[in-house]
Amino acid sequence: MKPIHIGLLGIGTVGGGTYTVLKRNREEIARRAGREIIVTMIADKDLEKARALADSNVIVTGNAHEITTNPDIDIVVELIGGQTIAKDLILEALAHGKHVVTANKALLANHGTEIFAAARAKGVIIAFEAAVAGGIPIIKALREGLTANRITWIAGIINGTSNFILSEMREKGLSFEQVLAEAQKLGYAEADPTYDIEGIDAAHKITLMSAIAFGIPVQFSKVYTEGITKLTGEDIRYAEQLGYRIKLLGITKRVEKGIELRVHPTLIPVRRLIANVEGVMNAIVVKGDAVGATLYYGAGAGAEPTASSVIADLVDVTRLHTADPMYRVPPLSFQPDLLSDTPVIPMEEVETSYYLRIQVIDKPGVMAEITRIVADNHISISALVQKEASDESDQVSVIMLTHLTVEKNINAAIARIEALPVVNGKVFRLRIEELNN
Amino acid sequence: MKPIHIGLLGIGTVGGGTYTVLKRNREEIARRAGREIIVTMIADKDLEKARALADSNVIVTGNAHEITTNPDIDIVVELIGGQTIAKDLILEALAHGKHVVTANKALLANHGTEIFAAARAKGVIIAFEAAVAGGIPIIKALREGLTANRITWIAGIINGTSNFILSEMREKGLSFEQVLAEAQKLGYAEADPTYDIEGIDAAHKITLMSAIAFGIPVQFSKVYTEGITKLTGEDIRYAEQLGYRIKLLGITKRVEKGIELRVHPTLIPVRRLIANVEGVMNAIVVKGDAVGATLYYGAGAGAEPTASSVIADLVDVTRLHTADPMYRVPPLSFQPDLLSDTPVIPMEEVETSYYLRIQVIDKPGVMAEITRIVADNHISISALVQKEASDESDQVSVIMLTHLTVEKNINAAIARIEALPVVNGKVFRLRIEELNN
Repeated sequence: MKPIHIGLLGIGTVGGGTYTVLKRNREEIARRAGREIIVTMIADKDLEKARALADSNVIVTGNAHEITTNPDIDIVVELIGGQTIAKDLILEALAHGKHVVTANKALLANHGTEIFAAARAKGVIIAFEAAVAGGIPIIKALREGLTANRITWIAGIINGTSNFILSEMREKGLSFEQVLAEAQKLGYAEADPTYDIEGIDAAHKITLMSAIAFGIPVQFSKVYTEGITKLTGEDIRYAEQLGYRIKLLGITKRVEKGIELRVHPTLIPVRRLIANVEGVMNAIVVKGDAVGATLYYGAGAGAEPTASSVIADLVDVTRLHTADPMYRVPPLSFQPDLLSDTPVIPMEEVETSYYLRIQVIDKPGVMAEITRIVADNHISISALVQKEASDESDQVSVIMLTHLTVEKNINAAIARIEALPVVNGKVFRLRIEELNN
Repeated sequence: MKPIHIGLLGIGTVGGGTYTVLKRNREEIARRAGREIIVTMIADKDLEKARALADSNVIVTGNAHEITTNPDIDIVVELIGGQTIAKDLILEALAHGKHVVTANKALLANHGTEIFAAARAKGVIIAFEAAVAGGIPIIKALREGLTANRITWIAGIINGTSNFILSEMREKGLSFEQVLAEAQKLGYAEADPTYDIEGIDAAHKITLMSAIAFGIPVQFSKVYTEGITKLTGEDIRYAEQLGYRIKLLGITKRVEKGIELRVHPTLIPVRRLIANVEGVMNAIVVKGDAVGATLYYGAGAGAEPTASSVIADLVDVTRLHTADPMYRVPPLSFQPDLLSDTPVIPMEEVETSYYLRIQVIDKPGVMAEITRIVADNHISISALVQKEASDESDQVSVIMLTHLTVEKNINAAIARIEALPVVNGKVFRLRIEELNN
């Protein structure tokens, strides 16, 4: 059987890892795929770097189109990133009848519909296991492993950088800024960490998982996104005292009104397995009506873990490209002409429970005023703790946990609480997920 | 597109669950599979029960051969269990060109080689996600999700009954016998619990995972198997005090001399995620050279979780049966003509670390004698604790943890320790796995 010929676009961290692992495990991978999978071309703007990495028989080019249009290339692996050049190259490769493997979550979360349609039109495969949660085969689990189920929700720690920051803040009692600086030094956070710490990266990933789980189109613009930059050590400590750990979660849920799609720091019970996923590791819990809750854990980033997913896709394509293109595994698991138009509901309509930290002047009647407002907004309180002021000031923190309520109710209550003369500054609000049903 | 027609053999717990879930989620499953998946025939010796469950348009028969030989049936689902009738029916179905889905771990662990060859000879698919860890898509992860990796080891909690017993013993301080009785009452343990508590069920499952991970034939006869029946509450408590939790693990590992394949109660560090998997839940850690450690968690048994895996296989077959039979996903991930003859090494040659509990008479020189024997056998001690006698007796328990050593060395040391006049009865030995590299 003749080998499968791969053209690699981009030879950065993941590209380099893919090349290295494919070479190191070449024999074992061939025994699984039934034929050899060989990188025959590499395109990168840094020709020197590409040549230093590649064996002498690999064609290195600065012109990616030489790969996407090359009749000898079977699969194009896009690891350039970004949404402009990468998109053009993927569409070009698909148009030339090549299967495409990509790790580009931002591109697919924004332009997945167009790209999936282009692949289908040519009867080729577009695969993207590496786009979500690095080495964890979560796309495969959702798209193939759990197809019996009506999925009810997914909750995932899907950004290693922010999970590392939260773990360090809790374990070492450091501030967000201190840990971010440490993470940048260790290479766990980029010079511009916005995508990670503001939840955008997680939002890309939950967009893809939501589409696969519920059979809806990718709709990145509909994700509610809130990062971890405003979290204080105080909140992490208070949460622990109440039996919760704070994690940046990507959450998508099927409810009566539609689909919830959101990323935000979340209190989850410490006794849940996922609450104990620390450092740069990722984990995703998927709840299905038949299977119950399943959890998938592993490295969410890094050269070789991500390469592991890229290569799994290459093996999949090698094994399955001969199957009837109309019926073999669709990219979003559901047949593209059978996607649902169930709406993503606005954050205001989401029902969850809340953690509020309210800075108040310590005098009689304060609690009565606050609890009255809460009751007026049909919110019921599950815990209420007044924290001693740490200094001589007359200020204290009131921590309130609520039962389930609709986000717009809590917003209304917060606005009224903030208007109280005894309340100082903004009310700090986090959301709670019990992850139990 | 015409529907896929399923013939169901056996309508017990899993068969009933499969029928129910297929019916309940029929529309969503069809949107994923691209066509309807319909049970058209059921065979069971209890015709009444089958008729009570099935819709009126389903053909119910007491004669399973009517299904396995029926030209209108596309996929036969074998959920009878056992290794005689089930084997004949599977072989008959394969011979008649039908794809087969089964949850029968005992059959595949013993006769997998023959059955896989029969499927290949006819160019049909044999799928068995439900045979290992219930609803967790671990077969798919190993066979497809981690194909880039040279797998180094797998360690799994793959028997819910024994995990439930160990959890309850630890949490409630009850004895093995007490918890077993409770488990039987709750339906978590069968009237004859031998397969579960003696590790045989776990041995079937680790046999299958080992074959898929390392590309070796299924070799159930080579598994070292030790159950949980001799564990005492004392050992569970001592382990906790030393930072370990005891779990019945199925372990398979690639080492220089060959493949380790074993099931036994194991001390694992409490801080590992898998140490915190409690009750009837299952979890498997897979270590690959590229991806690192990944973990898969979920319900390891039960009607609907297991049905989830059966149906995932049905969707897979529906989507992929048109692919080239020689290259589409092989049952053991590796191409059958490229399996390796790497030997399974005997338990005597396995290297691990140990927990020993030694009952001694409390008098001077005892420790010196024991530690001398241990040193003579080239074993190095990592912890040594003498436990106060709980009553007036002159007996104390000595708990010893060792560093890595070969099993035959520890056996030799134990034989000599047991021969000491100051040592009372048998030395109780458990194995330790750090699960860190």
